[in-house]
Amino acid sequence: MKIIRNLHAMTLWSDRLRREGVTIGFVPTMGALHDGHRALIRAARLRCDALVVSIFVNPAQFGPKEDLSRYPRPIARDRRLCRAEGVDVCFEPTPADMYSERFQTSVMVPELAGRWEGTARPHHFGGVATVLVKLFSLVRPHHAVFGQKDFQQAALVRRLIADLNLAVGLTVHPTVREPDGLAMSSRNVYLSPDHRRRAPVLYRALSAGRQAILDGLRDGRQVDRIMKRMMAEDRIVRPEYLAVCDAASLEPLKKVSGSVVLLGAIRIGRVRLIDNVTVAVPSAGSARRGRRSA
Amino acid sequence: MKIIRNLHAMTLWSDRLRREGVTIGFVPTMGALHDGHRALIRAARLRCDALVVSIFVNPAQFGPKEDLSRYPRPIARDRRLCRAEGVDVCFEPTPADMYSERFQTSVMVPELAGRWEGTARPHHFGGVATVLVKLFSLVRPHHAVFGQKDFQQAALVRRLIADLNLAVGLTVHPTVREPDGLAMSSRNVYLSPDHRRRAPVLYRALSAGRQAILDGLRDGRQVDRIMKRMMAEDRIVRPEYLAVCDAASLEPLKKVSGSVVLLGAIRIGRVRLIDNVTVAVPSAGSARRGRRSA
Repeated sequence: MKIIRNLHAMTLWSDRLRREGVTIGFVPTMGALHDGHRALIRAARLRCDALVVSIFVNPAQFGPKEDLSRYPRPIARDRRLCRAEGVDVCFEPTPADMYSERFQTSVMVPELAGRWEGTARPHHFGGVATVLVKLFSLVRPHHAVFGQKDFQQAALVRRLIADLNLAVGLTVHPTVREPDGLAMSSRNVYLSPDHRRRAPVLYRALSAGRQAILDGLRDGRQVDRIMKRMMAEDRIVRPEYLAVCDAASLEPLKKVSGSVVLLGAIRIGRVRLIDNVTVAVPSAGSARRGRRSA
Repeated sequence: MKIIRNLHAMTLWSDRLRREGVTIGFVPTMGALHDGHRALIRAARLRCDALVVSIFVNPAQFGPKEDLSRYPRPIARDRRLCRAEGVDVCFEPTPADMYSERFQTSVMVPELAGRWEGTARPHHFGGVATVLVKLFSLVRPHHAVFGQKDFQQAALVRRLIADLNLAVGLTVHPTVREPDGLAMSSRNVYLSPDHRRRAPVLYRALSAGRQAILDGLRDGRQVDRIMKRMMAEDRIVRPEYLAVCDAASLEPLKKVSGSVVLLGAIRIGRVRLIDNVTVAVPSAGSARRGRRSA
């Protein structure tokens, strides 16, 4: 496995392979790799000849009070995981190379960025969109794989690729979960043992909402209420939002129909966690009869 | 010469040539091609194996009260000029293909976009930056050529390419002028014969400012005054701004030094024209002795 830190060297590597007709897969990460990332890497591996994983804790997507400095950076372990998964290039640019002193350009996807995570983290998605355009330009992938866990990010990336004609194929890979349902996240390591035990309540609430929809419920506010009731069972976990939304626009749905996502964010102590589940709601004719398979 | 309107066909064409090791040159235009564009096309032709000219009157860079609908669109004549200059592809995307209903992404270069032309045209440079990222993604050029006449645009493109790692070489080609000094522009056709006769006063004012600098003047405000005095000779022409600036940041200079640009914009009747001249100011030691060659 090659470790590339220099931006120009990354582009040269990709250009050479592209000229040879090699297809390039790409998994952008902030490191602290876990089994969720491993699943993304394997999915990308299957779709492409050569595979680049970037490890870059992007300062631009952290707010001033967020966990940039204490974000975990176990680089040796990350490289071992990449090597074991047959990654061809581990791309590790430096913040100084990525953001020069005169840097001023930003990429915005304002409608998708303004909701949900964007409310709690106002600069987050601008930072994400900007760094992704940069990474796509540097790595020049044919295909990129993102995790469904960051559903809003994936929706935004889809819009970004379409709007800027970036010609990058996109796979959104299902969330990988711990046995008790907790979505894998690099931030799970922050949880105390007690908080770790409580954290799966978010997934249980989202799943209850989905089940209600599968059982035929179509009133978005009633689904919200079911999720909130389940969350209220734990007094330590504070919900930030729980919502039933259109899966493309992320607008909350009064009437549940089409491609639907249930989004949630919670705080436990100082840790903030997000999760989501999706459900396809059949057309009105068959909706009333309910549908029990996910 | 190929005429390509379909976005995907454009990218396929470029990808195929890139795989063959062909270098692709690109001149993005809004059509209404004149000898200024012809010079850009010839400069691009010299640098690359294959040459794409785009003709796209980009709605996103026009303000609501600007001349989008009446902007000249002599497409048959434009194609003839391209064909005569050995252009390989005339890329003519449609506004509907470029901006779908759900389109929402924007690219900003806020510091460079906020000044001068950006004051008069607040959405202009956002529209320019966004469409250029799109066009670069679609055309995938190795090299792009812009005209110095739109100096602020060229400075912004240079920043945009660096900030987003776009890996497009950039040439800024000197302004082509009519015999009386008027910078060639697609908007010159709007001028009445009387206004056309008056329009070169902008270039004369900028040239007087440059001459004063070459003669040793280093006080930016005094240079401004010289330019404004010359503009004041014509009561019909209204200056919008005249300024001595750093050529990279476009910040106005109190003390003239380094790479310098003199920027100007005027209104004559309903027509708005811009122009600029550059000058390299030698280091303090030799500055006092003056320098007479441009």
